[in-house]
Amino acid sequence: MTWGKRGDMIVHSADPLNAETSRAALGEHELTGVDAFYVRNHGPVPRSRRGGWRLRVDGLVDRPLELSVAGLRDGFARHEVVAALQCAGNRRVDLLRVRDIPGELPWGPGAAGNARWTGARLADVLAAAGVRPGAGHVAFLGADVSVQASPPQPFGGSVPLAKARCPEVLLAWAMNGEPLAPVHGAPIRVVVPGYIGARSVKWVERITVQAGPSDNYFQATAYRLLPPGADPATAGPADGIALGPFAVNASILAPGENARVPSGAITVSGYALAGGDRSVVRVDVSADGGRSWCQACLSPELSPWSWRGWRATLELPPGPAEVIARAWDSTASVQPEDPAQLWNPKGYANNAWTRLRLTVVPAGDGHPGR
Amino acid sequence: MTWGKRGDMIVHSADPLNAETSRAALGEHELTGVDAFYVRNHGPVPRSRRGGWRLRVDGLVDRPLELSVAGLRDGFARHEVVAALQCAGNRRVDLLRVRDIPGELPWGPGAAGNARWTGARLADVLAAAGVRPGAGHVAFLGADVSVQASPPQPFGGSVPLAKARCPEVLLAWAMNGEPLAPVHGAPIRVVVPGYIGARSVKWVERITVQAGPSDNYFQATAYRLLPPGADPATAGPADGIALGPFAVNASILAPGENARVPSGAITVSGYALAGGDRSVVRVDVSADGGRSWCQACLSPELSPWSWRGWRATLELPPGPAEVIARAWDSTASVQPEDPAQLWNPKGYANNAWTRLRLTVVPAGDGHPGR
Repeated sequence: MTWGKRGDMIVHSADPLNAETSRAALGEHELTGVDAFYVRNHGPVPRSRRGGWRLRVDGLVDRPLELSVAGLRDGFARHEVVAALQCAGNRRVDLLRVRDIPGELPWGPGAAGNARWTGARLADVLAAAGVRPGAGHVAFLGADVSVQASPPQPFGGSVPLAKARCPEVLLAWAMNGEPLAPVHGAPIRVVVPGYIGARSVKWVERITVQAGPSDNYFQATAYRLLPPGADPATAGPADGIALGPFAVNASILAPGENARVPSGAITVSGYALAGGDRSVVRVDVSADGGRSWCQACLSPELSPWSWRGWRATLELPPGPAEVIARAWDSTASVQPEDPAQLWNPKGYANNAWTRLRLTVVPAGDGHPGR
Repeated sequence: MTWGKRGDMIVHSADPLNAETSRAALGEHELTGVDAFYVRNHGPVPRSRRGGWRLRVDGLVDRPLELSVAGLRDGFARHEVVAALQCAGNRRVDLLRVRDIPGELPWGPGAAGNARWTGARLADVLAAAGVRPGAGHVAFLGADVSVQASPPQPFGGSVPLAKARCPEVLLAWAMNGEPLAPVHGAPIRVVVPGYIGARSVKWVERITVQAGPSDNYFQATAYRLLPPGADPATAGPADGIALGPFAVNASILAPGENARVPSGAITVSGYALAGGDRSVVRVDVSADGGRSWCQACLSPELSPWSWRGWRATLELPPGPAEVIARAWDSTASVQPEDPAQLWNPKGYANNAWTRLRLTVVPAGDGHPGR
């Protein structure tokens, strides 16, 4: 593990680098440390060229722009947004237990993180360029070339123009107050709160205003939710559901998986996040398979785009136990029950109830800590 | 049944009038006929006073307005929106089968409908009044007084200012091309697509721009999703989840409940609707309890706020059968499985999988029709 990351990252592949945050690290702070934040790459990290970096803004605009880092930082108002990012494959491991998903990484609950992003509003840059009639989407193109696309192409994606114009969407140069790290998209990345992480394109070099969505492989073909019977090898650009805003989700972070905990009052905690423009309004916890639930306490909302920490105290007798958590969003939409019902060939968008197995030992017995 | 409604309406209470549309009527057309559209009232229909009607616009505005019907129709651009409305209690009957819900009406799948609404944009009226800084919500007050509130008060509710300014939110005077009927809010009602029906206040007389949500009983206390253990009789304004945008939902309309159908190819159809700014992107149908699913065909989207009709053909052998349908929205959010997991003391927001029991008879056997 390099790139300034902690030793407890869970590395799923070294090249391209893909690593998730441990449960323990996610639970430490409301903002995930830069040294712990998950990394999801589709190609090698591009060589740094901060000085030579230029951002082109083109397509359906009145005035195409070419911006340097200084031009972006000095030419536009600076904004900060606390926002969670979540990979579309977060919690795929629970789908893998249902059925195999060849060629995809077994992400646990650590392909998500919460950070404070600093940058210019994409809306302001678009206004400077002047969006022309007929525009419907804004496409991003990064500097990272991926051989996962055939033929190899830079990573790209797009969001609807209405979202691109929202004040929370940034072209960010800092994360948690530090200059953006190379592995997280330096010098500039897009941050699209409420959308799957793939739309927050790193190392962004080109922004194109256009009528339809991007035809980049990672928008048109990958990151689509296919029906269970589809073959991803032959699925085309029009198949399945194009992923954008994500659905309400939650994970349990503490105690750790298969932890041994003393009987009595046991504190369970985790994160919950709602996609699009929704917010988390309730988290329920059950220790009896969902027959009864208690409501967790939610941590304060740092911003409408932040995740919410949650915490509940359960009384559990000695023996094996399974704790379940589920979150509700502001439309009273609750996480569905069973990952088997959500299985899809690429293993995206698992937001089934989250479960954690524990062993509760009689109080006073030695245990290796939580 | 009066008020120009069809004879096959399912009347849940006569005073106030509450009646839902039959499955058969809902399935007839993509737009629900005015004579079939569900009626959800909390008090008597106010006496018509079209000539004397005035709409006051006040609160945090630069120029308080007082508009007549002619002033509204002539003073603002006319817009049409096809939009579904859904009562927060739609499909409550499936929750009642889990546990009793005293004092609430046993709505089936017919407390929803799809119509073409004509009116002025609320956004235009707000712009004419001039929204002042500090505004966060827009409150509506109807002319219908409800004794369900204590003390009795006119029915009211509110939506966030951002939603109130969206182009789809209308002050409507026509429904499916006909002047708005008295029972549907004549002369003018609010239409808030994507939100529970309660926010589409009928017989609206006052629109108040204010900092927070309405303190009207039907916003602050009713229409909140309480946790299962709460007592609605003592629940206060801050308890539970305030309902606004609704979650993805679907119903099966044909064949009818407990229908006898001949074996072979059987067509199942219904509606699906997504709340907020989401859209329905997929509907699955299962005849084996959810072990396998086939995708239904979706009817064209009449507008982003319309519901989607869907249709699937299944091959079923003779015997008892249960067909299940579930819809996915554009965030890959799918309906949850089990109404028991959604039960709440007021019986709101049931969006569990929808189930329909059938008896499949050998082809050629007499049966009373579908």
